[in-house]
Amino acid sequence: MTSEPKFHGWLGLNTDSATGKMVWAEYEPKPFEPTDIDMRITHCGVCGSDLHHLRSGWRPADYPLCVGHEIIGIVIRVGSAVPAIKIGDRVGVGAQSGACLNQVGDCEACAEEMEQYCPRHTITYDARYPDGSKANGGYADYWRGPGAFVFQIPDAIPSHAAASMLCGGITAFSPLLEHGAGPGKRVGVIGIGGIGHFGVLAAKALGCDEIIAISRSSAKKEDALKMGATGFIATDEDEDWARGNACSLDLILSTVSSANMPFEGYLNLLRLKGHFVQLGAPEEKTPPFSMFALLSRHRSMSGSLIGSRSQIKYMLDFFAEKEVMPWVVTVPMADANKAIVDFEKGRGRYRYVLVNEKHL
Amino acid sequence: MTSEPKFHGWLGLNTDSATGKMVWAEYEPKPFEPTDIDMRITHCGVCGSDLHHLRSGWRPADYPLCVGHEIIGIVIRVGSAVPAIKIGDRVGVGAQSGACLNQVGDCEACAEEMEQYCPRHTITYDARYPDGSKANGGYADYWRGPGAFVFQIPDAIPSHAAASMLCGGITAFSPLLEHGAGPGKRVGVIGIGGIGHFGVLAAKALGCDEIIAISRSSAKKEDALKMGATGFIATDEDEDWARGNACSLDLILSTVSSANMPFEGYLNLLRLKGHFVQLGAPEEKTPPFSMFALLSRHRSMSGSLIGSRSQIKYMLDFFAEKEVMPWVVTVPMADANKAIVDFEKGRGRYRYVLVNEKHL
Repeated sequence: MTSEPKFHGWLGLNTDSATGKMVWAEYEPKPFEPTDIDMRITHCGVCGSDLHHLRSGWRPADYPLCVGHEIIGIVIRVGSAVPAIKIGDRVGVGAQSGACLNQVGDCEACAEEMEQYCPRHTITYDARYPDGSKANGGYADYWRGPGAFVFQIPDAIPSHAAASMLCGGITAFSPLLEHGAGPGKRVGVIGIGGIGHFGVLAAKALGCDEIIAISRSSAKKEDALKMGATGFIATDEDEDWARGNACSLDLILSTVSSANMPFEGYLNLLRLKGHFVQLGAPEEKTPPFSMFALLSRHRSMSGSLIGSRSQIKYMLDFFAEKEVMPWVVTVPMADANKAIVDFEKGRGRYRYVLVNEKHL
Repeated sequence: MTSEPKFHGWLGLNTDSATGKMVWAEYEPKPFEPTDIDMRITHCGVCGSDLHHLRSGWRPADYPLCVGHEIIGIVIRVGSAVPAIKIGDRVGVGAQSGACLNQVGDCEACAEEMEQYCPRHTITYDARYPDGSKANGGYADYWRGPGAFVFQIPDAIPSHAAASMLCGGITAFSPLLEHGAGPGKRVGVIGIGGIGHFGVLAAKALGCDEIIAISRSSAKKEDALKMGATGFIATDEDEDWARGNACSLDLILSTVSSANMPFEGYLNLLRLKGHFVQLGAPEEKTPPFSMFALLSRHRSMSGSLIGSRSQIKYMLDFFAEKEVMPWVVTVPMADANKAIVDFEKGRGRYRYVLVNEKHL
């Protein structure tokens, strides 16, 4: 066992922190339990959720908080009740760090291995563990939390790439798996950002027939085609985009996290029995739409949150085997405030990952 | 072959007709083709669609038009290309009277036996057949149209009951079938009217564990329990209805055809992976809702239109076997104008059926 590390990280103290005003400071980790591990953080991805929480966009945040839920590091301490993880392992934690795992006996989500929907789950930051202690994220030197949601990283995946998979990657991959994306399927991906670019990469790795990237402008067209898109729709540059592409897709992943979107036009892109999956979580309500968009072609829509533990494990092996490599921009951990501001401006092509250089 | 009948019916001449101002008059039927049949109408149900079309609510109507798409009658003429129907048969026609049935080779809907979603389909009235002639409905003495969408009525089902099954019944039954309603499932039905009361009756016949009728007031509670509901939610009489019943249902059928509804509260009634099916087609757009209602429990929603020919045949046999009897109010065909006004006021308990007494 190593000596107790000092937990320092970038803390959001109020809604202003989202504008690049996080403060590097020490904080109290949760009490170490036999089910926990400690890791020395080497990388942490920047996710849109980080901004939503920092600015109290979804709900009032539990300040001070340390965000970041695409965390990669080296294990430095392992609780006695954590199997299959040992000191020195290169591991990762995504957007969820706890769930009841059916210990209370009435949890249909945990019973069905969909623990991301456990009503008693703990998200990785801006949350509390059952004992009331705060869960904090990965814009930091160390991370402590339950080993049950810590994943071994395959050797073939570099840490900066693995980090971005743990929320961005699985959020796109889980619904592709669930809806049978593969040969014979035509998939649309709305929003070519951190999650969306994973949608294109993963749809290609899964062998989909057509992969249509959908964005406001054609600025990202060339990149999307390089990622594996077979077509591109720029909704602000083609007045006829909705009618011209109507009824052409089996599955759409929508990564849009603003309610300011042509929702009904998107739905009309689906063919008979086509399915629309919303991955982004707008802070506002969805725009009104005509029920005929669903009725007329027996279309359906759902929401999907990250993925289950078994899907994350499968994704890591699948991405390693298929050599799925996200497009990542690395930034020193010291520049986290600049990274979140640049992220908000849409500058990342396509995912920022903070690198804790002193821990490499 | 009988002599050519005279086609008289209740015609809507303009949007005013929806207020009880249809006019009994003669009209020109489509030219008789070898694929057609003629029937002497004995019964025709009153459906909400009739009002939407009469008042040009969904789109400008093709006046003059004769509405009604829950038609039962006796066959008086059979085209040479119509198999399995003979003069004297008691038959019915629902909301669809034509589709390409894959004759053009590129129709995924007809290829999958979901011909109600055929983009070249002909609905039973306020529509045109491929030759340009008008399709007219069942508020009339006779009906002429393709035999392909004409169903034999099982002896066990009286004509007034069979009529209401052909749109109201199948609209509720099709999504119950599709989503596996039966033992172990908890089903909610929003709106206890013509379609909704079929939802309760059919869910009971299918053996669902729980059937929760959902209405604004408790005025229909007693009736719903008699139909087979195991519970009742009156949303205007229980401030806590949404939270108190959250996450309790596997499947919800929404028959609401107004956009003025607590949509997000309805979605929150669904448990993990629960599914919401919209059957009503509001003329306005849906109210805004938070995507978290879908995201947080991996819920989904879809739209469903009537049912396929094979589902209608299955329904008629199943309802006959299970003795599913809709609650029908019969009204003389002569009183059609009064019936649609009373229908609009929600007076029917629970489906009006016009009876053409001179043809009985």
